[in-house]
Amino acid sequence: MTVKGIAVIGAGYWGPNLIRNLQAHPEWDLRWVCDLDSERAARAVGQAPGVRVTTSLDDVLDDPAVVAVAVATPAATHTAVVLSSLEAGRHVLVEKPLAPSLAEGQKLVEVAEDRGLVLMCDHTYCYTPAVLKIRELVRGGELGDIQYFDSVRVNLGLVQNDIDVLWDLGPHDLSILDFILPEDMRPTSIAATGADPVGAGHLCVGYLTMPLGNKAVAHVHLNWLSPKKVRTTLIGGSRRMVVWDDLDPSQRVSVYDRGVELQGTQGDARRQAQVAYRLGDMVAPALPEREALQGVAGEFASAIAEHRAPLTDGRSGLRVLELLEAAGRSLEQGGGFVNIGAES
Amino acid sequence: MTVKGIAVIGAGYWGPNLIRNLQAHPEWDLRWVCDLDSERAARAVGQAPGVRVTTSLDDVLDDPAVVAVAVATPAATHTAVVLSSLEAGRHVLVEKPLAPSLAEGQKLVEVAEDRGLVLMCDHTYCYTPAVLKIRELVRGGELGDIQYFDSVRVNLGLVQNDIDVLWDLGPHDLSILDFILPEDMRPTSIAATGADPVGAGHLCVGYLTMPLGNKAVAHVHLNWLSPKKVRTTLIGGSRRMVVWDDLDPSQRVSVYDRGVELQGTQGDARRQAQVAYRLGDMVAPALPEREALQGVAGEFASAIAEHRAPLTDGRSGLRVLELLEAAGRSLEQGGGFVNIGAES
Amino acid sequence: MTVKGIAVIGAGYWGPNLIRNLQAHPEWDLRWVCDLDSERAARAVGQAPGVRVTTSLDDVLDDPAVVAVAVATPAATHTAVVLSSLEAGRHVLVEKPLAPSLAEGQKLVEVAEDRGLVLMCDHTYCYTPAVLKIRELVRGGELGDIQYFDSVRVNLGLVQNDIDVLWDLGPHDLSILDFILPEDMRPTSIAATGADPVGAGHLCVGYLTMPLGNKAVAHVHLNWLSPKKVRTTLIGGSRRMVVWDDLDPSQRVSVYDRGVELQGTQGDARRQAQVAYRLGDMVAPALPEREALQGVAGEFASAIAEHRAPLTDGRSGLRVLELLEAAGRSLEQGGGFVNIGAES
Amino acid sequence: MTVKGIAVIGAGYWGPNLIRNLQAHPEWDLRWVCDLDSERAARAVGQAPGVRVTTSLDDVLDDPAVVAVAVATPAATHTAVVLSSLEAGRHVLVEKPLAPSLAEGQKLVEVAEDRGLVLMCDHTYCYTPAVLKIRELVRGGELGDIQYFDSVRVNLGLVQNDIDVLWDLGPHDLSILDFILPEDMRPTSIAATGADPVGAGHLCVGYLTMPLGNKAVAHVHLNWLSPKKVRTTLIGGSRRMVVWDDLDPSQRVSVYDRGVELQGTQGDARRQAQVAYRLGDMVAPALPEREALQGVAGEFASAIAEHRAPLTDGRSGLRVLELLEAAGRSLEQGGGFVNIGAES
Repeated sequence: MTVKGIAVIGAGYWGPNLIRNLQAHPEWDLRWVCDLDSERAARAVGQAPGVRVTTSLDDVLDDPAVVAVAVATPAATHTAVVLSSLEAGRHVLVEKPLAPSLAEGQKLVEVAEDRGLVLMCDHTYCYTPAVLKIRELVRGGELGDIQYFDSVRVNLGLVQNDIDVLWDLGPHDLSILDFILPEDMRPTSIAATGADPVGAGHLCVGYLTMPLGNKAVAHVHLNWLSPKKVRTTLIGGSRRMVVWDDLDPSQRVSVYDRGVELQGTQGDARRQAQVAYRLGDMVAPALPEREALQGVAGEFASAIAEHRAPLTDGRSGLRVLELLEAAGRSLEQGGGFVNIGAES
Repeated sequence: MTVKGIAVIGAGYWGPNLIRNLQAHPEWDLRWVCDLDSERAARAVGQAPGVRVTTSLDDVLDDPAVVAVAVATPAATHTAVVLSSLEAGRHVLVEKPLAPSLAEGQKLVEVAEDRGLVLMCDHTYCYTPAVLKIRELVRGGELGDIQYFDSVRVNLGLVQNDIDVLWDLGPHDLSILDFILPEDMRPTSIAATGADPVGAGHLCVGYLTMPLGNKAVAHVHLNWLSPKKVRTTLIGGSRRMVVWDDLDPSQRVSVYDRGVELQGTQGDARRQAQVAYRLGDMVAPALPEREALQGVAGEFASAIAEHRAPLTDGRSGLRVLELLEAAGRSLEQGGGFVNIGAES
Repeated sequence: MTVKGIAVIGAGYWGPNLIRNLQAHPEWDLRWVCDLDSERAARAVGQAPGVRVTTSLDDVLDDPAVVAVAVATPAATHTAVVLSSLEAGRHVLVEKPLAPSLAEGQKLVEVAEDRGLVLMCDHTYCYTPAVLKIRELVRGGELGDIQYFDSVRVNLGLVQNDIDVLWDLGPHDLSILDFILPEDMRPTSIAATGADPVGAGHLCVGYLTMPLGNKAVAHVHLNWLSPKKVRTTLIGGSRRMVVWDDLDPSQRVSVYDRGVELQGTQGDARRQAQVAYRLGDMVAPALPEREALQGVAGEFASAIAEHRAPLTDGRSGLRVLELLEAAGRSLEQGGGFVNIGAES
Repeated sequence: MTVKGIAVIGAGYWGPNLIRNLQAHPEWDLRWVCDLDSERAARAVGQAPGVRVTTSLDDVLDDPAVVAVAVATPAATHTAVVLSSLEAGRHVLVEKPLAPSLAEGQKLVEVAEDRGLVLMCDHTYCYTPAVLKIRELVRGGELGDIQYFDSVRVNLGLVQNDIDVLWDLGPHDLSILDFILPEDMRPTSIAATGADPVGAGHLCVGYLTMPLGNKAVAHVHLNWLSPKKVRTTLIGGSRRMVVWDDLDPSQRVSVYDRGVELQGTQGDARRQAQVAYRLGDMVAPALPEREALQGVAGEFASAIAEHRAPLTDGRSGLRVLELLEAAGRSLEQGGGFVNIGAES
């Protein structure tokens, strides 16, 4: 393990979390914090010895000890900052969304792949102990065939000025879905509906429906106008079913040995009599207490060291962007399904 | 108050509840229980003095003391039973759905209206203390402008042989929506999506989206394959917001003095700075403990006595049928929106 | 299996539940319902064919087909009714408490034992699926050494005129404790404290502390004045720990693989460094849905057929009475511990 | 408002929280962090400009700009550190417990009072929005006469080497009780029971019962061996009742308009018929989101500026110590009640 030099670009909302976690991580040496607002950068870094503050990305990229950058600037600037960093030969960790459009995201992925650099999306939720456990359950076959994925992410949220609720909250659920599902189950199309009842100029309440492979469905409810915070995901499987309640720290993941099995054949007129219900125990697996960003920092370091794609690589970011853009087209077309995958 | 003679037709799943509640109600005199299975009818009625059992609807309709019938036979038989009863001059209370199709339902409503008879749908949930309170809050303006209605009705349910999850569970939410909303807010179109991951031959997981008047939206999640039972409805309003959790007997209805207000104008570039958040108290109103079917029985008696339409009249049943049929067309067309209201 | 004739004595609050469950049970033939108020008896029995109503216990005991009686009269009358029944050679199932005093209870147990009759206490909670599962976990050693038993049974309850909250609610927890613990762990003394803040003339808020064998402790909180209903019991064990929340139908019993182990010796000054914490999975076992009184009826029938003591025999009722009387003495003495076992 | 110089003594478990909150507070100028372990002190302070690190209390007390110290050293050292600081003319904020014994605590209070210095206990919970609201409800009379206070503070906790669960967790509940109750309601005696089922050498499960003025009672359940974390307090009042669930961030405080009223007289034989039950609405008041230690820092500054006793002054710390010492005597005497107040 060699300690690697890194810089954080952007010291606004999320930057301080990256700074704290990179400083605490044994494989990283945080060398710079860069922000156009130098006072904000200074505040974010404190007086940590050896960490320099600058308003110029060039200062960072001129430092040969910096092998990687973590980008937490506003989404609109991702393309320029990431591109400069890649072209200067640096590995890049970038906040969600990867880029403000699919086309720009594709450009970034191409450049990274051409140069053999790691481009990783900071899909933070994927590195929580809960989601890692769910991925293991899904991928390891413990749930059997996936039947549905239903997520509710609502609260009295900050009504954003420049993006709708789908672009604000949707990347969380879409990146989790991408992370846990095997490749052949990924969404094949998407339909988006919702409402703007307060006159924000874009959706404040949104619903996404995505048929998955194997006759399953994914659905996401996103809402800035709920009096109560809810962060609950139901995942149905033919062998087990999962309830993930992220607001219950004492029991985030519950795995139910429950299910329905049709034992008749499709044409069987008396099928109903042959439905078998399974009502077994529930297990809430013990989960380690660990900050997700430590996992992000570790995966980024490992991917670089091992010359491999990280778990949430640039292509996972592209898939999220593709779904968001298709959701936008569905809205424009009045809510019908828009196919995925033609473009990527 | 004159006590009125009544008969219950159908002694299967729901009939015994009607029998028990009509026997207990001071305005009704239960005279007959009619079922093709005379043993089932006898079991349902016990040895209650004066209540006769028959397998023939004619016996019931030949009794001049019977002024009304309550129909709890399978949906496919509603049209014939209700029509005979109306044509014999009896008022009718009928289980949901009113009829197996919108066209047949319209026929029933027409006959009842022509003859000046009360035709009431047993939309039982509408008579729970929780829904009555919510209706009062919505109609009385306490919630302000309705922004959204989001209902989740999921559990490991009986996978039905002959109807999908929309027709099985949907009438509950659609009748509640119809009951609480003012007329000018009713759904103008509907889109349905979902999945049949177990090969039941029809939807086991379903999602309904309905734009409402005034830029609001209603959404319903229905699911037979959930490991956990959920019965939660969120209702957003510009002045107050409601969470109705029907599984929490100690706090079913919570009214939050919370909200978001945009104070800028539509074209204001700096709108975000002008969003005001309200985070006030929550009140859980005391609700009486009362069985909903007592309210149904009372409303049916009052509507007959007062020669008026009951709160959940035949037309409310038609509106539910119209939504369900339109949902079916949406599914057939791949999930886009289907307009409501052309036909009714 | 021979069907046995039985009579229910007392048709007040609890009698109808006994009547319904005995009628439904295949091993019992309910022949009589006896109550001083003959109208109440008639209402309770409905028009069930073959069940006779009487105001006289003699009528019941004169019927040779009656081999057993179930007594649900007020506690003050238990001694007379049970004694008459035993002396007439009938097996007896009796509501809690067994008798209004320990001395009278002892008399009943002696008579039953002398005559070889079954005397069973209707400690209904012991026959719930949750308590049966907990007993199995405790007795089977899955919990390891029991460390503590802590029960909270509070709500806005009916303030009783003639008995305090200890005698009203306490028998539930004391009989459960007796049921699940092995003999050598039973309480050796009891201390009672509490308050009568509303001037009822006796405790409305009560606390019982009972040292158990093996350095463990049991504690019960009983309260008629709580705004919220709570029915939660924690049971600590050296191998597993249980939370029983009787108000959560979806997860009544949770078994945690958690614990603390001291690995140092008693005199070890650096013991703290050697505490090991175990934080494993939680399992909520699937529990059958079954009415507890069906289990009571079945156990009563089996005990008679097999000439054995029932699980909740008269002696278990005596142990509950002994704890209640000792709690009363503790209260009189100002709350200190009173020994158990000298008298029984 | 003059900014005052302050030092934090002790940079272990709690010190960093004091450091962070004093640095952030506008009325305080944090000048020193003092700890015998200079590296730990340096880590705790970061490189905050102007904050010096020392291992010597003398360095701190030699700085004339330091007008106050915040002491977060182990309890055993409180007496020496606080005494030196008071004798050097400094105001003192000290962690709970005030001192390791009542006698030493009395000495500290005397010295502070003699010199006219502020001696404040950092009873942090008292400054949470929830407890401040409850105090306001109790003191303002909204709850009516207090009937009981029942607190449960249990989890799988760190089994301490040198103190039992009463001294570890008890100060939280005892200081809250002291804070919210009016003077004439304070505990008049205390009884302690519990168990040491793991062989820790002292109580790991503890129960405290305290009769309050006006026939009310307080009870506290403290437990290091619970599989589940519970932080719930019930407070009964004749007009309103409160449930404080500190683990439910969305509804910490619930105020129920519920109660029981006896309308008969003490000697009335038919009293039961005259109990009136009130079952009104529940209100969950909106609470500000604010860190309690900001309130502690502010109250300390204000008390100094206004030459007054702080809300949680040294005498409140003495009352907590007195209860803890009396609880110890109760344990030694086998659990009976020990009077309070003779000594203080």
